[in-house]
Amino acid sequence: MPTTPAVFVGPQENPQLVEAVERGGGRVVALAEAEAVVVSGGHGDLPELPAAVRWVQLPSAGIEAWVESGVVDSSRTWTSATGAYSHAVAEGAVALLLAGVRGIGRAARLTTWDHAILDAAQTSLRGSTIAVVGAGGIGSAMIPAFVALGAEVLAVTRRGLPVEGAARTLPADRVGEVFAAADHVVLAAPATAQTKALVGAEQLAAIGPQGWLVNIARGSLVDTDALVSALAEGTIAGAALDVTDPEPLPDGHPLWSEPRCIITPHSTNPTPLQVAALAERVAENVRRFAAGEELLGLVDPERGY
Amino acid sequence: MPTTPAVFVGPQENPQLVEAVERGGGRVVALAEAEAVVVSGGHGDLPELPAAVRWVQLPSAGIEAWVESGVVDSSRTWTSATGAYSHAVAEGAVALLLAGVRGIGRAARLTTWDHAILDAAQTSLRGSTIAVVGAGGIGSAMIPAFVALGAEVLAVTRRGLPVEGAARTLPADRVGEVFAAADHVVLAAPATAQTKALVGAEQLAAIGPQGWLVNIARGSLVDTDALVSALAEGTIAGAALDVTDPEPLPDGHPLWSEPRCIITPHSTNPTPLQVAALAERVAENVRRFAAGEELLGLVDPERGY
Repeated sequence: MPTTPAVFVGPQENPQLVEAVERGGGRVVALAEAEAVVVSGGHGDLPELPAAVRWVQLPSAGIEAWVESGVVDSSRTWTSATGAYSHAVAEGAVALLLAGVRGIGRAARLTTWDHAILDAAQTSLRGSTIAVVGAGGIGSAMIPAFVALGAEVLAVTRRGLPVEGAARTLPADRVGEVFAAADHVVLAAPATAQTKALVGAEQLAAIGPQGWLVNIARGSLVDTDALVSALAEGTIAGAALDVTDPEPLPDGHPLWSEPRCIITPHSTNPTPLQVAALAERVAENVRRFAAGEELLGLVDPERGY
Repeated sequence: MPTTPAVFVGPQENPQLVEAVERGGGRVVALAEAEAVVVSGGHGDLPELPAAVRWVQLPSAGIEAWVESGVVDSSRTWTSATGAYSHAVAEGAVALLLAGVRGIGRAARLTTWDHAILDAAQTSLRGSTIAVVGAGGIGSAMIPAFVALGAEVLAVTRRGLPVEGAARTLPADRVGEVFAAADHVVLAAPATAQTKALVGAEQLAAIGPQGWLVNIARGSLVDTDALVSALAEGTIAGAALDVTDPEPLPDGHPLWSEPRCIITPHSTNPTPLQVAALAERVAENVRRFAAGEELLGLVDPERGY
């Protein structure tokens, strides 16, 4: 029999989080009466917490600011929003790759009924192989949509352990193989020394003239000059970039006028979707708290994440 | 034990169909030695068929031209490509709706790193309800991708019988309900007297300022003037149109310069994808022919389809 948790939402007012608490089966109360706190806004600052507060939900995936301000202790349970925002970014990557192969970037720029250009520009994800380089929270969240569209996924993870829904998973030290093996490549790996300029002229040549490159990771993963050349020469079919190097991409940069390129200015995790994703997480964690189940995004106060 | 069917591909040369026959387990032979014929190109004309030809695969979904020319008879089995092209159009519809909600139409027109416009323009399909008006071959082929993206589908079919993957199905005489009930509406219904101007000012108001309208059916289903007003006034979030009324859309029409509108000029079933889809169908039917299984797209010569 679930309880009805008494939850404070603050310090900033947030009707969507209030609604989420209620949707999860809680009731919203003043801080003095609260057994749980859903933190809205702020950057490490918190009102003083009554002893009765047993659980605090923080609003971000990275919680460095809260840890540094010293509020995160082991006297109660803390949860971060880690993983809550993966779906928004993953959906953005699916949208970018589909827009690429189906010529929608080119269509959006048309001002006349030019059927021929759209006819020639298109391929399909159906029957294709899509490499997801960095199949962590975000990368693996793309896989169900790609599979539903009839594509096969070749995942790359650090250790190469099988990823659900992927036809095959390779370890990071074999990432060089995927550019020839896949039709399209989606970059979702962290920016590290190992991934710096991971995609250069050689990799673009391996992707080939029917292949699209999508980057929703960090601009540093791609050698921009090599990409500009590859697009101009038709070495690859196109690129859809949420991130660039340099970033922001300066006005007048050749990528802005490249017909085979789509640029979303670092916006696959936009504010409205963050709010919705946090609300979804809050509702689920309130439900779990009420039912006595393990919460999502548990923080280890010793380790600080 | 499957046989190895002897298949003629013609009258036009077509390496992709030759490859498809071989992939399906057949071997490509001259017409005089053929027991099956895969027709490539032509508009109703066929070479004279030897008596040994037991099966003819036609290349199109509609076969009026072949029926009118009198070649389709009941002395052998005929198959059309009906249904083979559904996936390409369905994928186009998914790409259009995703591009709409994720702001990719607007992104494609950027020439400067404008984060704010993309941030404000976006919603997500996750947690949304998508009405698929006309959940036949094409409409129902969209459903798995929408479901994989975390959306719920409200299908409309003529009789309202349950559609696989849809949360709910309504009969055509209740189509008026979906504009308020769903977040986004995809039109995939045939052009009939009943669907003419199905979407006007009232329906657009019901879709509301967060909702996208996608039309991959026929331009006549939408009242264009009402749509132009709704877009200009922000009554709906946007429209993604593969078909328009009039079509082609004339140069200078207000929809060409509407930032909330994406237009693909009747190109969700482009030639390269038709070729790929026909090849997939041919490979599958050759496999079935070899195994003695029922073929896809069987034509009833008496009825002519």
